[in-house]
Amino acid sequence: MPHLVILYSGNLDAQTDMPALCRTLADAMLSISDETGAPVYPPGGTRVLAYPAAHWAVSDGGAAGRAAGGDGDYGFMYLNLRMASGRSDAIKQQVGQAVLAALKSHVAPLLERLHVGFTLQIDEGHEVFDAKLSSLHPLFNRA
Amino acid sequence: MPHLVILYSGNLDAQTDMPALCRTLADAMLSISDETGAPVYPPGGTRVLAYPAAHWAVSDGGAAGRAAGGDGDYGFMYLNLRMASGRSDAIKQQVGQAVLAALKSHVAPLLERLHVGFTLQIDEGHEVFDAKLSSLHPLFNRA
Amino acid sequence: MPHLVILYSGNLDAQTDMPALCRTLADAMLSISDETGAPVYPPGGTRVLAYPAAHWAVSDGGAAGRAAGGDGDYGFMYLNLRMASGRSDAIKQQVGQAVLAALKSHVAPLLERLHVGFTLQIDEGHEVFDAKLSSLHPLFNRA
Repeated sequence: MPHLVILYSGNLDAQTDMPALCRTLADAMLSISDETGAPVYPPGGTRVLAYPAAHWAVSDGGAAGRAAGGDGDYGFMYLNLRMASGRSDAIKQQVGQAVLAALKSHVAPLLERLHVGFTLQIDEGHEVFDAKLSSLHPLFNRA
Repeated sequence: MPHLVILYSGNLDAQTDMPALCRTLADAMLSISDETGAPVYPPGGTRVLAYPAAHWAVSDGGAAGRAAGGDGDYGFMYLNLRMASGRSDAIKQQVGQAVLAALKSHVAPLLERLHVGFTLQIDEGHEVFDAKLSSLHPLFNRA
Repeated sequence: MPHLVILYSGNLDAQTDMPALCRTLADAMLSISDETGAPVYPPGGTRVLAYPAAHWAVSDGGAAGRAAGGDGDYGFMYLNLRMASGRSDAIKQQVGQAVLAALKSHVAPLLERLHVGFTLQIDEGHEVFDAKLSSLHPLFNRA
């Protein structure tokens, strides 16, 4: 943990560099330190996965956008970050603000020229079973 | 909010018009009014995203379907609607029934000719951080 | 229910047989019996759906892997099983261990040769609305 999953209308692939957004958001997560200066997230456990939807319907389907003199090709992106439970409220807000700032910086041009919405939400996991297998963590735990 | 995410076995793309289903379900959500006659969902915040799985395994893999004289090419669709927390129980049921009715109407022919399952669930979000950026909402808030 | 959704970095499609993993995990779920010997999961309600991400960012993007003399092409797989609420703790652990054992057996070669992480989590659903339509269950309920 954590992981950030991005679900979005597939028309946005032609509008922005999604691999770059993934990297930007992962870097934002990796840059966060707690009160003691320790990283909040371990490098080996930070991941972003992005999924363009094959099919979608947004809002009224375009009528209002066309009536406003633009096109009706709306976009939508939902970003969901799942973090382990038990973090302090301060850390939750800090993580949210860091990811939001990185997102805003990347998508500002889209908000200018498209009819598009972005929603970022953080959920705490309340899993009843949890197991991990990794040959990635050891890369970052060397002496 | 709200958004409805559809996860389904990819074989259903050849069986039904998924973009039409997305539109039908979005329209069902947009048509719901509360006790005062106000729309439950804002047009700018209503989205449906549909994802055919690249790989899947359903049930016993086909043996029972073939034994019953049909094919073993089972299908499955999972529809998850996430709504903001704090809605009344009456609204939750109303939304569920409206989306279910629209779904039933669209998939009735599939239930007739395929071995297929549909599950619709509504979750209330209990996010610990929530942020939105939108150039879509203003289209619907003009004087 | 239940369903298991697998989200993973798309580079893993070239590394392992994902349809086989889906089948293996579904079989593991179907093989579980409760204290009375009855199957925990109904055949008609057991599904696995796997989604390669179109875009992703994992960890530091590859620097540590290259520094360690390997490549920097990290992989990640997240497996989320949603089960109906109200199961006993013993069943939850039994399901988790059965799925984990099947996963381990399939991915052991990947852990040997790649820098890759696997996370398996089970969530209990707390849906506020639930509806099912099925022409699949009847196959398994014949006299």
